[in-house]
Amino acid sequence: PSLVLEREQISSIGRGLCVLLGISVEDTQKDADYIVRKILNLRLFEDENGRAWTKSVMDRDFEVLCVSQFTLHCVLKGNKPDFHLAMPAELAQPFYNSILENMRSTYKPELIKDGKFGAYMQVSIQNDGPVTVELASPTGPTDPKQLSKQEKQQQRKEKTRSKGPSDSSRDKGALRSRQDPNASSGAEGDVSSEREP
Amino acid sequence: PSLVLEREQISSIGRGLCVLLGISVEDTQKDADYIVRKILNLRLFEDENGRAWTKSVMDRDFEVLCVSQFTLHCVLKGNKPDFHLAMPAELAQPFYNSILENMRSTYKPELIKDGKFGAYMQVSIQNDGPVTVELASPTGPTDPKQLSKQEKQQQRKEKTRSKGPSDSSRDKGALRSRQDPNASSGAEGDVSSEREP
Repeated sequence: PSLVLEREQISSIGRGLCVLLGISVEDTQKDADYIVRKILNLRLFEDENGRAWTKSVMDRDFEVLCVSQFTLHCVLKGNKPDFHLAMPAELAQPFYNSILENMRSTYKPELIKDGKFGAYMQVSIQNDGPVTVELASPTGPTDPKQLSKQEKQQQRKEKTRSKGPSDSSRDKGALRSRQDPNASSGAEGDVSSEREP
Repeated sequence: PSLVLEREQISSIGRGLCVLLGISVEDTQKDADYIVRKILNLRLFEDENGRAWTKSVMDRDFEVLCVSQFTLHCVLKGNKPDFHLAMPAELAQPFYNSILENMRSTYKPELIKDGKFGAYMQVSIQNDGPVTVELASPTGPTDPKQLSKQEKQQQRKEKTRSKGPSDSSRDKGALRSRQDPNASSGAEGDVSSEREP
């Protein structure tokens, strides 16, 4: 056949986290700050002695591959997915870029990679374990003094979050993020675009 | 170095869904039925004319690669993940197997592949798009007559589910599932184990 697909590699990482990041219409700076903090500090890796769940991506000097993923804010209409809760692309793109900048300035810029916002891509993930966790940003007071308390509340709430359904409108502003701690040495995650030349 | 890693391929699929399946302590047969129905019927694929979100995995005769993933029921204790909401392995394994059987009998047995329950694996996912959605099973009445109404409720609730936190104990029984509609022709998802011989 005469159709040729051209593939261009956009990014790739070694060991680390592959983050699929979904931004909702109601997300704010506070959601972004929370999610960046959790991505960088969650203890998803083992330590040098093989003790699991003790080290964060920053502790291990591992990499982060971040890919925008509006479909995480999917709503089911019967069997048809609907995406009106995802932040529209023209707003989500600067928001997404600010999250990347936040991660780069908090960690090491050269260890934060990303895909191409909104592009059709092939994302190759080698999920080591596998380990997949979901992060959802909290809502709550903006008063910094209350942050710690709010985090505790969030933790309690997250225990019961798994069922999904919730009738609270406070639940709507979710910044969702999935993390796959990525493959062991030698393996990699990468993002490439595919298009007809 | 004398350490040699041996890798054995357990499963692989072509186009289809890679399902990462997390079973919670409170999941019941009803949750299992819901999740199987949604996995098989959700319109995540394009039709023959390229119209997106119109065809299910069954419509397209695509495959399903199912991998157990207890970490989806992760609860954050600060930055440490905790997994006490995941169903213990000795109960989760038969539950997981019954979900696979359910999928096989509803669809075509030869198109449902799976990993090795509880094993340390490398799961290679080529996420085409990428497209990642989260499914959470509903709670509600078991009366079949109420199922349709319950599904509608669930849909309304799922709109607000994204924030995660919810104080309702009904939210605890989540059967979670993530789906990655899988790579275009030629690409594949596969699961392999890695061990020291």
